[in-house]
Amino acid sequence: MFESAELGHRIARAEYARREPALRAALLEAQFALGASGRFPVVIVIGGVDGAGKGETVNLLNEWMDPRHIHTHAYPPPSDEERERPRMWRYWRTLPPRGTIGILFGAWHTDPVLDRVARRSDNDTYERQIEEICRFEQMLADEGVLLLKYWFHLSRRDQKARLSALAKDPLTRWRVTAEDWRRFAQYDRFRKVSEQLLRRTSTAHAPWQIVEGLDEHYRSLTVGESLLAALRARLKRTEPVVPVRAAAVVPALDRRSVLSALELDQPLSREQYEPLLERWQGRLNRLSRHAKFRRHSVVVVFEGVDAAGKGGAIRRVTAALDARQYQGVPVAAPSEEERAQPYLWRFWRNLPRRGHFALFDRSWYGRVLVERVERLCSESDWMRAYGEINDFEAELAAHGVIVVKFWLQISKAEQLRRFRERERVAFKNFKITPEDWRNRRRWNDYQQAVCDMVDRTSTDVAPWTLVEADNKLFARIKVLSALTGRIEAALQRG
Amino acid sequence: MFESAELGHRIARAEYARREPALRAALLEAQFALGASGRFPVVIVIGGVDGAGKGETVNLLNEWMDPRHIHTHAYPPPSDEERERPRMWRYWRTLPPRGTIGILFGAWHTDPVLDRVARRSDNDTYERQIEEICRFEQMLADEGVLLLKYWFHLSRRDQKARLSALAKDPLTRWRVTAEDWRRFAQYDRFRKVSEQLLRRTSTAHAPWQIVEGLDEHYRSLTVGESLLAALRARLKRTEPVVPVRAAAVVPALDRRSVLSALELDQPLSREQYEPLLERWQGRLNRLSRHAKFRRHSVVVVFEGVDAAGKGGAIRRVTAALDARQYQGVPVAAPSEEERAQPYLWRFWRNLPRRGHFALFDRSWYGRVLVERVERLCSESDWMRAYGEINDFEAELAAHGVIVVKFWLQISKAEQLRRFRERERVAFKNFKITPEDWRNRRRWNDYQQAVCDMVDRTSTDVAPWTLVEADNKLFARIKVLSALTGRIEAALQRG
Repeated sequence: MFESAELGHRIARAEYARREPALRAALLEAQFALGASGRFPVVIVIGGVDGAGKGETVNLLNEWMDPRHIHTHAYPPPSDEERERPRMWRYWRTLPPRGTIGILFGAWHTDPVLDRVARRSDNDTYERQIEEICRFEQMLADEGVLLLKYWFHLSRRDQKARLSALAKDPLTRWRVTAEDWRRFAQYDRFRKVSEQLLRRTSTAHAPWQIVEGLDEHYRSLTVGESLLAALRARLKRTEPVVPVRAAAVVPALDRRSVLSALELDQPLSREQYEPLLERWQGRLNRLSRHAKFRRHSVVVVFEGVDAAGKGGAIRRVTAALDARQYQGVPVAAPSEEERAQPYLWRFWRNLPRRGHFALFDRSWYGRVLVERVERLCSESDWMRAYGEINDFEAELAAHGVIVVKFWLQISKAEQLRRFRERERVAFKNFKITPEDWRNRRRWNDYQQAVCDMVDRTSTDVAPWTLVEADNKLFARIKVLSALTGRIEAALQRG
Repeated sequence: MFESAELGHRIARAEYARREPALRAALLEAQFALGASGRFPVVIVIGGVDGAGKGETVNLLNEWMDPRHIHTHAYPPPSDEERERPRMWRYWRTLPPRGTIGILFGAWHTDPVLDRVARRSDNDTYERQIEEICRFEQMLADEGVLLLKYWFHLSRRDQKARLSALAKDPLTRWRVTAEDWRRFAQYDRFRKVSEQLLRRTSTAHAPWQIVEGLDEHYRSLTVGESLLAALRARLKRTEPVVPVRAAAVVPALDRRSVLSALELDQPLSREQYEPLLERWQGRLNRLSRHAKFRRHSVVVVFEGVDAAGKGGAIRRVTAALDARQYQGVPVAAPSEEERAQPYLWRFWRNLPRRGHFALFDRSWYGRVLVERVERLCSESDWMRAYGEINDFEAELAAHGVIVVKFWLQISKAEQLRRFRERERVAFKNFKITPEDWRNRRRWNDYQQAVCDMVDRTSTDVAPWTLVEADNKLFARIKVLSALTGRIEAALQRG
């Protein structure tokens, strides 16, 4: 894999001097076109061995182009705010918005490689991490990110020669530390481990480009020309990629579904309700103050038919919690800054710190519900979203986040009754809009989307709880008890 | 000051039960109107003694209203990301956007009070902090924030009775810690220190409301009714506050100004320039890698006449730095999320961590330049901005941030020459827009605004450097040397 990057590639100074000005002007022009179009973001990932010119190249790119529209990020040991979120949070928060370039210096691949080199992780773990990286990068590419990955390489011999030369010169001796030699002793292992990464994460949409780092002119021109070609090709492409049409989803032929199987009107009187409410709220409250809870956080998703009582259910949950411990996240149309990012970005930015709850009133499932039904995204967009969402929730769960998801279901007749009541009662008037009536006309489409959603995203780590909600009191108790049960189970595990 | 809150105020359970439902419904309605109007944010600051029902009241407000549109924040010890920014950064990042309510539990006043109680600060420091709080709150109010401050109080006797009662009951004994008694021993001092705060920060636009915390019904209704009244009054006010007209700014009668005094075309040949550029860039680079630099950060502001060469000057600075160490911040029209906040918010969010540079291409000075000249804000808005900006920069400086500000000035004739060149050269074409020509017609207004800006915001901690820029080469060297000089001076001080 590294053979072509150990040939001692060189570009003569004169040739460099001849080609560099035109390249530079062209890059600047392409960067401007990128900003003017605002169509996609560019993510440049920089990896490779030390001393192969990574930093120099990044600085050069900033010099060639307009540094005001490039965001360069390095990843030193994570801050405490980062440690309290899933591993990928720090990368999500540094993704560049559309129209700009982000240079990520040692991004999501670095820790897995170093952990494996140092044998802090075994091969199975490493393989799993690589698989996660593949899926993450696939998602970025599908979301329109132009993803370019450069791996800077030096042969064993060249690396040794570099260190020896530095160590011999009294002026540069200080630059070679014991750590450098220690790392050099692991050269072969590092090479083997990174080859595994490069091989497995070089995909059609985001191949690694291996750059021999020995000669400054060669590596600079290589990265510059490659970046320019990629930018130009992408800018020229005016059509969105025509996605392969997904296999059609066929609803069950006998019309039976997880929703139709529900008995929506569950009995529970107000007299039964009051003591149950108090009991479950008390139990939830005690859990939220449990010492072990500080190691977890909770993400609750509330989805449901319009007027199914999401707001009321959420308020019965928050009433059991200390207001300093939760954050409600009402999800409506994305803001301008959110629209300039992959669709999951706005949910990542709202992930809670340890010991906290985030209560999402609607969520990332909008992608496979309203966006699917109203055709706000393409079929392949929402088809791939199931997998992306499962990956997202698995990452949360792996970090100790307790993911709890509710679908509140009412019957079509009950919805009509509630809509009418909302229109009648002045106080509830603001809760009913023409959009609600519009959605109601698409009842069957939405129900089908819900069934598909449950089938495809109810996972072991993040199962759906379907809530029969014609009787609001019953629904609230079911939400509280299911949420409490999930937290109890998690705390018992540790 | 606390006399009225030591009277043993009570509301009978029956009266509470009668009044609470109507209050609750009215609050919910007012909150909805707030969200629908999206006109202003509400900041509720909660302070006071322990055990006086602060947490309970905050939870109750969340229960009464729609918790999805309330952001409740507490301030535990700052995270490392917060510690690396000025003190107020953590409060800025939690300000609620327009149309929503933020409940800040122990906000910016808490640390000054506790530091003074524990004698970690002297009275002069405390007075200065109080003065800063006043100016900050004045700014919030001027920016349209509805600021409500509640101070929960218990008399010495009631506090003692509360602790004793808890300690006596075996079931609640664990809730009273040695720390509680230690704090109680300081009751009188805490009372005195906080009285000083309350007296001095109770202003016309944001008075403290002192709430006796003994009786749950009394304190809940008091806060609820007060909040409702404030919300309603503010929602009814459809007109923006008509500001007192500021005293007119009279330009110097003889037309001499800091700008007219500049000799804009300074001699410097390319032969002289090249070695100077290398020397200053080298010096800046070494400073950026100095051990002491890790305790500082640098905020550089680039302002100037259109086509004065800001971009070129910025690139000569970034070329001297490692790309991982700086962030360019191009300032154009604010985003939707930024428009929902006080105008300084978007600059706070871009403040660098320690050891980093932020390079602002245009800045918060837009308020007193383009916004003033194009009448995008009222006269009193830009008049108060001078003081707000000085406060902002003083806060940065107090935290060890090195604030460096450049105004690049070219002559009207030189600007015309550059505009024409930009129109001619295809490659520079994108740099010239109709807006540039429009601004040029207002040349004198802009120049007057610049003179006023320099007069009012060139301070000891953040002086302006006026850069004669008809000769670009000279301008770049002046920028580099002034920046380097400021950093050197700061590192020498510590």
